[in-house]
Amino acid sequence: MLKLTNRQIVLATRPTELPQREHFEIIETPMVSLGAGDVLVKIRYVALSPWQGQRLKDFRNFTRPFAIGELIDCDALGKVVASNDDAMPVGQVVTGRMGWQEYAVIKPSALSRVDADAQVDELMWLTTLSSPGLTAYCAMDLFGRPAPGQTLVVTSAAGSVGSYAVQLGKLAGARVVGICGGQRKCAHVLNELGADAAIDHQDESFEDALRDACGGNAHLFFDTVGGPIADTVFEQLAKYARVLFVGRTASNNSATPHLDPVNLRQLWAREASMQCFSRYSYDERWAFAKDRMLELCQQGRIRSHHNVVEGFSETPQALHDMLAGKYTGKVLVHYA
Amino acid sequence: MLKLTNRQIVLATRPTELPQREHFEIIETPMVSLGAGDVLVKIRYVALSPWQGQRLKDFRNFTRPFAIGELIDCDALGKVVASNDDAMPVGQVVTGRMGWQEYAVIKPSALSRVDADAQVDELMWLTTLSSPGLTAYCAMDLFGRPAPGQTLVVTSAAGSVGSYAVQLGKLAGARVVGICGGQRKCAHVLNELGADAAIDHQDESFEDALRDACGGNAHLFFDTVGGPIADTVFEQLAKYARVLFVGRTASNNSATPHLDPVNLRQLWAREASMQCFSRYSYDERWAFAKDRMLELCQQGRIRSHHNVVEGFSETPQALHDMLAGKYTGKVLVHYA
Repeated sequence: MLKLTNRQIVLATRPTELPQREHFEIIETPMVSLGAGDVLVKIRYVALSPWQGQRLKDFRNFTRPFAIGELIDCDALGKVVASNDDAMPVGQVVTGRMGWQEYAVIKPSALSRVDADAQVDELMWLTTLSSPGLTAYCAMDLFGRPAPGQTLVVTSAAGSVGSYAVQLGKLAGARVVGICGGQRKCAHVLNELGADAAIDHQDESFEDALRDACGGNAHLFFDTVGGPIADTVFEQLAKYARVLFVGRTASNNSATPHLDPVNLRQLWAREASMQCFSRYSYDERWAFAKDRMLELCQQGRIRSHHNVVEGFSETPQALHDMLAGKYTGKVLVHYA
Repeated sequence: MLKLTNRQIVLATRPTELPQREHFEIIETPMVSLGAGDVLVKIRYVALSPWQGQRLKDFRNFTRPFAIGELIDCDALGKVVASNDDAMPVGQVVTGRMGWQEYAVIKPSALSRVDADAQVDELMWLTTLSSPGLTAYCAMDLFGRPAPGQTLVVTSAAGSVGSYAVQLGKLAGARVVGICGGQRKCAHVLNELGADAAIDHQDESFEDALRDACGGNAHLFFDTVGGPIADTVFEQLAKYARVLFVGRTASNNSATPHLDPVNLRQLWAREASMQCFSRYSYDERWAFAKDRMLELCQQGRIRSHHNVVEGFSETPQALHDMLAGKYTGKVLVHYA
């Protein structure tokens, strides 16, 4: 028996720095009836991402900011519980942009099917086989191309995208130096992800440790952070190094997201080339990347490291904690 | 009859901003005798370049700073007046890094011959067929590749390198928008270099005028300036635009040359790719570029726009004036 009301979490007021519970409101809405071709999905897990923090602010980048009162969007995994589309039967597990709510009414074309026969942990369809993993795969495959004999530096190496960049770099035979915040994450990057070195940017020896690990000869830099950490990495780049700018969480989550300077001097002195990468431009590569990553998952060569927070109403706090760097790996919230 | 003394201009004290006469000293030195294989060149013209201003400061980039008391290095053109090398006869006109002095004792391997039969203005061997022209050629040929249907933006478009970027862009069939300082330079870029639009960055309408000229659809950006002017151009780049960082005079000549931030946000939003380019890495392309540029000169399709300042002792003032933006095109100083 379906509930008659849906619960949603919407934006109440805009945070200027890290979002807190008070910036959100839980509202009850009547369950809308299904239109022609719609399906109703009962959401089981939602995935938290840095871009959600960015879209809470009044700042335009790839996508518009959330409006006050608007449902917070996100990737989610759920099960079809009612369907007006014969090709998408009740019981099918799906992923898609369904948002912080208990139920979503959505067109099947906006959903991806979870392949129950694929024999991988179901949550990998929200991590390795969704935005975080596929973003890292596409960026590495199309532009990064790490190779044996090369040193790859990855920022936010314990993070949702960075952790795949580290693993893919190792699979490609590169020497991988991961940067992350705190000794707990460093141990994870070293022991679980297999990096050759893990450097703590919160430690006062950061610059020296990075120099020791890179020796001014880093060939490829996979960056999702920007800001002063990236500037420190630039000083360790080899001549003709390549920089992949895949994200910029340092500025997204700052009070001044419109400023995002990089110190070109170090890049210029090394005649570096840089590529800004957004996953939103590579839809046509998504299926290819998903097939390849699924293979790697099934072979046990790529692993997903995620955290599951319990409870719909804990979503805002979980977002805060994730943006504050509390978690190692992707953060999922379990709804039902 | 050769003089018994040579005059040289050396660094006396370091400028923190634009160099003035007082930062230099003219010294008389005894003429050194030629070693085995050496030649003596009587210098006729020296070429002034932004990197000279940078090397006056205590700041390391591609090359070390000039030492106090050191001869100021530069490209120069002169005639061999004594030779201990049969293959480099007296009377041969040559170019090379000979510095601010009346005579240079130098190995022929460090010199390039001026081809008197090539039927081009002799001074083009110091401009179009030397660093400024060949830097622009190599950067455009190896990385820029402007094409019909594309919009190319060039900063310092009336400058020694930028003026060739504009001309090469037009020859390649691109629509070219030149940026420079002041109406006089704009007229030059439009009427002499053939740009499709010339925008004055000193005018308060700069941003609007650039938007009108580019319409947010600039495909290629050839930048030799950096700083706020480049940041303004970033806002007019097309999706997947390419940026060639060929110089950074905005910071070289500032009081804080160690800082050279670019606002990555605009580049990231457009998924731009960037290439830092230094001519010093492309020696092996130099001969190819020179042959091609010579052809273009002989066909009258590329022109050199240079200024000749009279007199050895005027060199420091000429450097100041060039760095202050007084001149349109390359600045040469006539020594003898």
